[in-house]
Amino acid sequence: MTRTARAYTNIALIKYWGKKDKQLKLPYTNSLSLTLDRFYTDTKATIIDADKDIVYLNKQLLDETKNKRIINYLQTIRDFYGFSDHFQIDSINHVPTSAGFASSASGFAALAAAINETKQLGLTRQELSILARNGSGSASRSIYGGFVEWQAGFDNASSFAVPIDENPQIDLSLLSVVINKHSKKVSSTVGMENSVKTSPFYPNWVTLVSSEIKEIKQAIAKKDLQKIGEISEHNAMSMHALTLSANPSFTYFAPQTIKIMQLIQELRQKGIFAYATIDAGPNVKIICTKESITKVQEYIEQQLSDVTCVVANIGPGIQYI
Amino acid sequence: MTRTARAYTNIALIKYWGKKDKQLKLPYTNSLSLTLDRFYTDTKATIIDADKDIVYLNKQLLDETKNKRIINYLQTIRDFYGFSDHFQIDSINHVPTSAGFASSASGFAALAAAINETKQLGLTRQELSILARNGSGSASRSIYGGFVEWQAGFDNASSFAVPIDENPQIDLSLLSVVINKHSKKVSSTVGMENSVKTSPFYPNWVTLVSSEIKEIKQAIAKKDLQKIGEISEHNAMSMHALTLSANPSFTYFAPQTIKIMQLIQELRQKGIFAYATIDAGPNVKIICTKESITKVQEYIEQQLSDVTCVVANIGPGIQYI
Repeated sequence: MTRTARAYTNIALIKYWGKKDKQLKLPYTNSLSLTLDRFYTDTKATIIDADKDIVYLNKQLLDETKNKRIINYLQTIRDFYGFSDHFQIDSINHVPTSAGFASSASGFAALAAAINETKQLGLTRQELSILARNGSGSASRSIYGGFVEWQAGFDNASSFAVPIDENPQIDLSLLSVVINKHSKKVSSTVGMENSVKTSPFYPNWVTLVSSEIKEIKQAIAKKDLQKIGEISEHNAMSMHALTLSANPSFTYFAPQTIKIMQLIQELRQKGIFAYATIDAGPNVKIICTKESITKVQEYIEQQLSDVTCVVANIGPGIQYI
Repeated sequence: MTRTARAYTNIALIKYWGKKDKQLKLPYTNSLSLTLDRFYTDTKATIIDADKDIVYLNKQLLDETKNKRIINYLQTIRDFYGFSDHFQIDSINHVPTSAGFASSASGFAALAAAINETKQLGLTRQELSILARNGSGSASRSIYGGFVEWQAGFDNASSFAVPIDENPQIDLSLLSVVINKHSKKVSSTVGMENSVKTSPFYPNWVTLVSSEIKEIKQAIAKKDLQKIGEISEHNAMSMHALTLSANPSFTYFAPQTIKIMQLIQELRQKGIFAYATIDAGPNVKIICTKESITKVQEYIEQQLSDVTCVVANIGPGIQYI
């Protein structure tokens, strides 16, 4: 019994920032993302006659210090669905670190899907989204293509992603600008926790997300690119305002992050479509149109030497290969 | 009839960010500052037999485009106190732009005091603070030395600064780190207004300031330097969180601002006393002790080439010279 699933990574336009249940990875707010075509994880799950799981990542066997999160996740699945099989997992990440994306979203979505197929659990996509969420919150969204909303819910069964438009006919592309040298970062888990516990602005963030989710869904329905860009940029910057106002204050911004934000302002002043979104790290993802993206990339590369630019387009949901 | 007044600039540890009345410069919140000894304005006011005011700044006659704010202010004073004299104003700013401080606080405080003396208005310091506030909000605090609180009030007569400790025996010094090259900034007036109108976090800022003012006054009374540093840094960063979360988002940070904040973190990890405060611009002011300030300056200058460091100590209130 062996099956391989492919899941793509996603970029949150309305950010997931804060867990109300750490164990179940239930968020305080809904979030909304765009699945990307360029970065994905292929994961093969094979039932093995053994009393331990074996995990290969990029063809390297992971030792016990490195496979712990995945082994714990497989145990969660066994407990939940009441079976005792162990697996060999072969996972290949096509999400290079140099692209500035975390691989946990595509990784846990692909793993959940591979187990579902191999064990023939017959899960619906909604159930698959719940299962993926238990591995990594943002993985819940990588089950679907295009625009996806993760509904916060209130328990394990009610917190899952739903497709907003799986194959949107909309002129959007994403330029990931990766800063090659920067100091090590605060993990997103720790950053979220500190924001929730200590930022005096966190309660207003919850209210803000609720209204921005509504607005961006209207903008998506109308294919109002400018509105999508504006809401996304404002939402991302408001998330980073939560880290600045945490106590003690911290920031994911590197000096180059500010420089790239200045360049995006300049591009917009020239009439070129470019809006910033930034996750829990220094890299800037620029929301572009297919027309603007070349100009944006040229301008960024001309002004800055120490960055790598990678282009992505809208991607599909889970696939079996 | 001629008198000269000297007023020193001040650094807000709890920031003034947002006017509830633009005309009267009434703030939404109290603020709290430390007057500095290094930067000041000397202003001489002379009653002249003319129907127009004449303004010299740093020995240069200001033309009508440049003296407007001062002329309007003099008219406000005439209207308020019911006299019709005009003045020659000779103002010398010892607040070099390269020190990273605005001269409006010391400038309007010195001007208000000079008029008060020249016209023998006999204003109390409280009345002088009100008068200075009408020129520039933060000037209300430069009437006093040491730690000063500007109480927001609710109308012209109730919005003034009060001394917390005019001559504090406390081991604090300030290192102003000025970034020599940076792009032009959003004025603080426009920045405040955009934050108040569009940041979803502004209502919580008002609540935050109210509790941080109480906490820092307790810390000042106890001479708890670390607490003063921590509260000041958190308050400043929360103010900058208001600009990031404004819509559209903006920031006063330059790339070097982030770099200096990283260096301050490193200094603290080495056990060296250093906390950041940042106003409506890219420069970073570092709250130090007399012991730490040399080490802080050396470290900053060693790591960064394009900055100028200036040291200031605690300064006095209005003086007549």
